Amino acid sequence: MSVYEKLKSLNITLPKMDPPAAVFVPFVRTGNLLFVSGHIAKKDGNPWTGKLGVDLITAEGKQAARGIAVDLLATLQAATSDLNKVQRIVKLLVLVNSAPTFTEQHLVANGASELFIEVFGRDCGAHARSAFGVAQIPLDSCVEIELIAELKM
Amino acid sequence: MSVYEKLKSLNITLPKMDPPAAVFVPFVRTGNLLFVSGHIAKKDGNPWTGKLGVDLITAEGKQAARGIAVDLLATLQAATSDLNKVQRIVKLLVLVNSAPTFTEQHLVANGASELFIEVFGRDCGAHARSAFGVAQIPLDSCVEIELIAELKM
Amino acid sequence: MSVYEKLKSLNITLPKMDPPAAVFVPFVRTGNLLFVSGHIAKKDGNPWTGKLGVDLITAEGKQAARGIAVDLLATLQAATSDLNKVQRIVKLLVLVNSAPTFTEQHLVANGASELFIEVFGRDCGAHARSAFGVAQIPLDSCVEIELIAELKM
Repeated sequence: MSVYEKLKSLNITLPKMDPPAAVFVPFVRTGNLLFVSGHIAKKDGNPWTGKLGVDLITAEGKQAARGIAVDLLATLQAATSDLNKVQRIVKLLVLVNSAPTFTEQHLVANGASELFIEVFGRDCGAHARSAFGVAQIPLDSCVEIELIAELKM
Repeated sequence: MSVYEKLKSLNITLPKMDPPAAVFVPFVRTGNLLFVSGHIAKKDGNPWTGKLGVDLITAEGKQAARGIAVDLLATLQAATSDLNKVQRIVKLLVLVNSAPTFTEQHLVANGASELFIEVFGRDCGAHARSAFGVAQIPLDSCVEIELIAELKM
Repeated sequence: MSVYEKLKSLNITLPKMDPPAAVFVPFVRTGNLLFVSGHIAKKDGNPWTGKLGVDLITAEGKQAARGIAVDLLATLQAATSDLNKVQRIVKLLVLVNSAPTFTEQHLVANGASELFIEVFGRDCGAHARSAFGVAQIPLDSCVEIELIAELKM
């Protein structure tokens, strides 16, 4: 199944990529590596706010991470014009807005990791990853994810 | 205007790069990518200390981030001997020493992002970026920034 | 002295690499760069838990970081089949589970940095680095380290 058929079977419609901010860009390509800016969690177009372990439970954080992965796909689409040009999801950096006692950042991050494997398959979608808890995220967003991808030459 | 004319017009004199620490180096080049170590905020040669949202306001953090960007330029100068060899600022990782309630890490980070665009122009200076709040930074510094640049071959 | 002789002289026996998690992989190679997932601190096979500045002192965190470096070597061994194929340790990202008042993340990180230099020598082992304090780490681990290496083609 192609990437787009897979997205259709998952009932995922890619949103428009967010308009770039004034002072940085959503992605930079260097060689065949694509460095994608941190994307924050959103709900109905606004930041999905709150701290895991205080305001949100793990399942909500995981859902937020899955939503970010969809937004990252939209950015990959904008960067490549064709998601089939993605050779490999190389690495995710998953930042979870965490109370000092919340220790399930890896389970939150799985929400994004699983989506990339569902959409791209294991050979292309399985990635290296770091996940950890941060003191805050811009606009009180609950999760932020940065991505590195390898593109086909 | 060249990079050095631009620096002059901004009244920026590049400092000497800090002497390398014993157990790590300020930068590593691999291929045409330059990975630059996290640089902490300094004021008058000492760590610029404090937490955003408690000890410092956003404008101070932004000023600290701009100062780090100048120090990063000094490191780029040491790495390249000529800033005109910088092809592209690829990515910044901006860590803001944050109270759990401080949510303007992106505005702090703009202090660095804006300087890179002022100095290198948008084509070369605009970069991907992640910014978030951390629990602490070495020596209680208020901001730390790590950079990836692409160099001309 | 070769890498393996050096390991022997340091009385370090490489463990087996941890079995990969279901939804991400321990490393991804792209070109001659190897991106290694964040590895958490372990003690006797379990997460080495606790916060620096509350539950653990700097010397303990440094020891934990050295232990992670050994685990990272095991992952590099699995990725390369021969550690002599490592051209350069490029960068470490060192996350320290920190109380808001703990400011010695750099000293904790030295535990890993020193080991890489001992094993690979300065030319190959000295790396760029960022170290900072995070609010939490999966499973309450005290330190997490992510690594980028350059491999010989």
